[in-house]
Amino acid sequence: MSILRQKIYTIIFESDTPAGKAFDLALIFFILLSVVLVMLDSLPDMHDRWGIWLLGAELLITILFTIEYALRLYCARRPLRYAGSFFGIVDLLAIIPTYAGIFAPGLHFLATIRILRVLRIFRILNMVQFMGEGNSLWLALKRSRHKIAVFLSTVLTVVVFVGSLMYLIEGAEGGFTSIPKSIYWAIVTMTTVGYGDIAPKTPLGQIVASLLMVVGYGIIAVPTGIVTSEMMRPKAPAQDEICPCCGRKLEEQP
Amino acid sequence: MSILRQKIYTIIFESDTPAGKAFDLALIFFILLSVVLVMLDSLPDMHDRWGIWLLGAELLITILFTIEYALRLYCARRPLRYAGSFFGIVDLLAIIPTYAGIFAPGLHFLATIRILRVLRIFRILNMVQFMGEGNSLWLALKRSRHKIAVFLSTVLTVVVFVGSLMYLIEGAEGGFTSIPKSIYWAIVTMTTVGYGDIAPKTPLGQIVASLLMVVGYGIIAVPTGIVTSEMMRPKAPAQDEICPCCGRKLEEQP
Amino acid sequence: MSILRQKIYTIIFESDTPAGKAFDLALIFFILLSVVLVMLDSLPDMHDRWGIWLLGAELLITILFTIEYALRLYCARRPLRYAGSFFGIVDLLAIIPTYAGIFAPGLHFLATIRILRVLRIFRILNMVQFMGEGNSLWLALKRSRHKIAVFLSTVLTVVVFVGSLMYLIEGAEGGFTSIPKSIYWAIVTMTTVGYGDIAPKTPLGQIVASLLMVVGYGIIAVPTGIVTSEMMRPKAPAQDEICPCCGRKLEEQP
Amino acid sequence: MSILRQKIYTIIFESDTPAGKAFDLALIFFILLSVVLVMLDSLPDMHDRWGIWLLGAELLITILFTIEYALRLYCARRPLRYAGSFFGIVDLLAIIPTYAGIFAPGLHFLATIRILRVLRIFRILNMVQFMGEGNSLWLALKRSRHKIAVFLSTVLTVVVFVGSLMYLIEGAEGGFTSIPKSIYWAIVTMTTVGYGDIAPKTPLGQIVASLLMVVGYGIIAVPTGIVTSEMMRPKAPAQDEICPCCGRKLEEQP
Repeated sequence: MSILRQKIYTIIFESDTPAGKAFDLALIFFILLSVVLVMLDSLPDMHDRWGIWLLGAELLITILFTIEYALRLYCARRPLRYAGSFFGIVDLLAIIPTYAGIFAPGLHFLATIRILRVLRIFRILNMVQFMGEGNSLWLALKRSRHKIAVFLSTVLTVVVFVGSLMYLIEGAEGGFTSIPKSIYWAIVTMTTVGYGDIAPKTPLGQIVASLLMVVGYGIIAVPTGIVTSEMMRPKAPAQDEICPCCGRKLEEQP
Repeated sequence: MSILRQKIYTIIFESDTPAGKAFDLALIFFILLSVVLVMLDSLPDMHDRWGIWLLGAELLITILFTIEYALRLYCARRPLRYAGSFFGIVDLLAIIPTYAGIFAPGLHFLATIRILRVLRIFRILNMVQFMGEGNSLWLALKRSRHKIAVFLSTVLTVVVFVGSLMYLIEGAEGGFTSIPKSIYWAIVTMTTVGYGDIAPKTPLGQIVASLLMVVGYGIIAVPTGIVTSEMMRPKAPAQDEICPCCGRKLEEQP
Repeated sequence: MSILRQKIYTIIFESDTPAGKAFDLALIFFILLSVVLVMLDSLPDMHDRWGIWLLGAELLITILFTIEYALRLYCARRPLRYAGSFFGIVDLLAIIPTYAGIFAPGLHFLATIRILRVLRIFRILNMVQFMGEGNSLWLALKRSRHKIAVFLSTVLTVVVFVGSLMYLIEGAEGGFTSIPKSIYWAIVTMTTVGYGDIAPKTPLGQIVASLLMVVGYGIIAVPTGIVTSEMMRPKAPAQDEICPCCGRKLEEQP
Repeated sequence: MSILRQKIYTIIFESDTPAGKAFDLALIFFILLSVVLVMLDSLPDMHDRWGIWLLGAELLITILFTIEYALRLYCARRPLRYAGSFFGIVDLLAIIPTYAGIFAPGLHFLATIRILRVLRIFRILNMVQFMGEGNSLWLALKRSRHKIAVFLSTVLTVVVFVGSLMYLIEGAEGGFTSIPKSIYWAIVTMTTVGYGDIAPKTPLGQIVASLLMVVGYGIIAVPTGIVTSEMMRPKAPAQDEICPCCGRKLEEQP
């Protein structure tokens, strides 16, 4: 019995055996397939014409994912801990909406949650070799979290301030109907997205908007500078490294 | 008496005692609450339905801020200097608009100025530990002020020149009704915001706009390069450090 | 015979003789001319007025390119290998559409494929001296391919997730008619392009959009950091290096 | 006589005497004033109400600039060389349009050329101390000109290729009425400006546009990387060049 559990664990949770690799590939295939099915089902044309087939495929995949979830619970060393972990919840959210849609048709809108299955890809990515790269990007972000906090609070203050100013200057007829909407406009402008659904009409408003753009343009340099300078720092010594599997610190071998 | 003043000073202006920390947290809470109230009050729906409650909460907060302002004046070593400092003025601007709206209803439009309270957050940020990070970002900006000045004057010349050119090429029917408006368009384009409220219609105008975009695209690299190279410079020696409290240079301890 | 082949080879495939250089210049001229002709022909006005002249010039250029293609086949050491190579296929695609349009008028829409001729420019660029620079840019990209893969899969997950969320929040009346369309919107927003053809209307949608923008704004720093830190890495060892002075590979000193 | 010329030369062309500095400040004032006048005159309201005053001020400034131009010609060591230099032509273009507008009213549209006066500012900037910074930015750009050329030709090829593809996919009803217009759209998209005056409507078009955006988003990193890595290179010694092969200074051949 314990040998069977161990064997299933090796296949499902690890990827260094041929069976484990095959399982990972099949899982990626079904995850991507199911995400594509959710997308297709949201297209009105597709839903009307192929709805019944999409539903069938969806059911099939959900059953497969349910079996997989049961096996994971079965072979995990600490089932409750797995069920409560990030990926355990994502695995559960991947199968619940379909059953909810069947047994409680009123909850059909939950179906979109199935798109969260795309997060499951990351479980497998964890195991491939470029995990280390993701880790170094993450470390660079983590090391510069204070700088990023200062940057974000500056941006926040600027958009709240400029948003309120534009609400005073432009008023409702220019589309700036409230302060939150003006702040939304300020974020759209400062990040250089610029939809154009709200745009200043008065000369004074356009001058303030121009200043905000040039400032935003300069500020775009700050996070780039932060990330670049962090990424170019010499690699931190071993005690900064954390094992991506077990979460423990890696230590020098004696 | 002097002991009471000293004690209040420790609570209000410093944050290394439990009471000081509690005061700072309460202050942040009320500042954020009051900013949210100002925003909600600007929403027409909210104003109509909850206007009277919002006004009440606003009055309460203003009274709290007035007491705080009075205490600051009372316990500051040089009250006039505090009143004339940046944060002293912000503290005053945080309470004046509400009273102005009550005693002179015609000045009600001043209410939006209350959003300036958001700047008060920075007083508290000053004291927490990532102050140093903000300082290093600021030093990086300050050290590269000449480069930024050259960069900004180049951008300014380009937008004035291209704006005038587009005014000649496109004319009023394309939305380029005057040179200042064309310069506004050039800034919107060069910073890659691109609202689309004004856009070139003639082939020649579109060619000039394309050139401006590619140039702006390349120029985006310059401030990034400036900030990044400044941030990666080895930390400057002590004589560059300035105390954030008193503005004096920090010196090596003997 | 073999001498003739060798001589033609030197002229067509190489560029270090006066004849080879003249051939390259003429080829660049005709490529650019033909690309401009294809563009002009797509303008309805031009097509109506000068269509017959444009067709004539097009025929002439196609004949020249056909002769060139035949000569390349003739003098290449391994004609089949040339025909199957990237540039061999581009050379063939440069002449087929014109003949297809003449002999099978129904295939006239293929004419736009002729624009692929612009790729032929790169054959000649290969040989000029800034080839080395392109190479170093390419190496920088190649060395950071794992980081770029992590970055792209993160971006993909974010846009799929936020796109689905916005489909739930905004629904069809806001323009978010299906999940793929919402994902398209999320890409348009996160890359800060921001057309404004689809834009959130509900307050909740605008809050989610604001978060996406600020995140996208921060993420813009990651590829910049990757490329910059790769470009500043000390030059890779000798077997990858080409001397920018003499064009020869640099070798380890004995 | 020669002493007078020398004295005028010192005042006009140099700025290290009190008189020279005063002259520079006065010149900057009149240049900015005249640029503002040109802008105001382009506003229909301003032109109707204050047109005669603006014309008067314009005439006065033109006369001052004419005297200055005459003095420059008079005291320059080689008057013809000055007249043919970049700044000599800009100085001439600063005064011609006003006279042309008076003596040949049909040439009134030339008036906008007066905005070129803004370029004259750079003559004075030349002399102030941050000239050196502009120089280092310029050197960074110049040293990376090969990389920038590779980058620009890649961008050009991509926009020509994607523009033509979108012309095929979207066609006239989506706003992609011709290949040049589609290329314009591709530039607007790839530089993340995104006006939204032309936007893909078909699903296939939106997929291609999404790919272009993500690619453009990654490519934005390349010029930043180029400029940053150039700006961080150790300052080159006087003769500027370091051999990329051996790291030794390149010296003049004996």
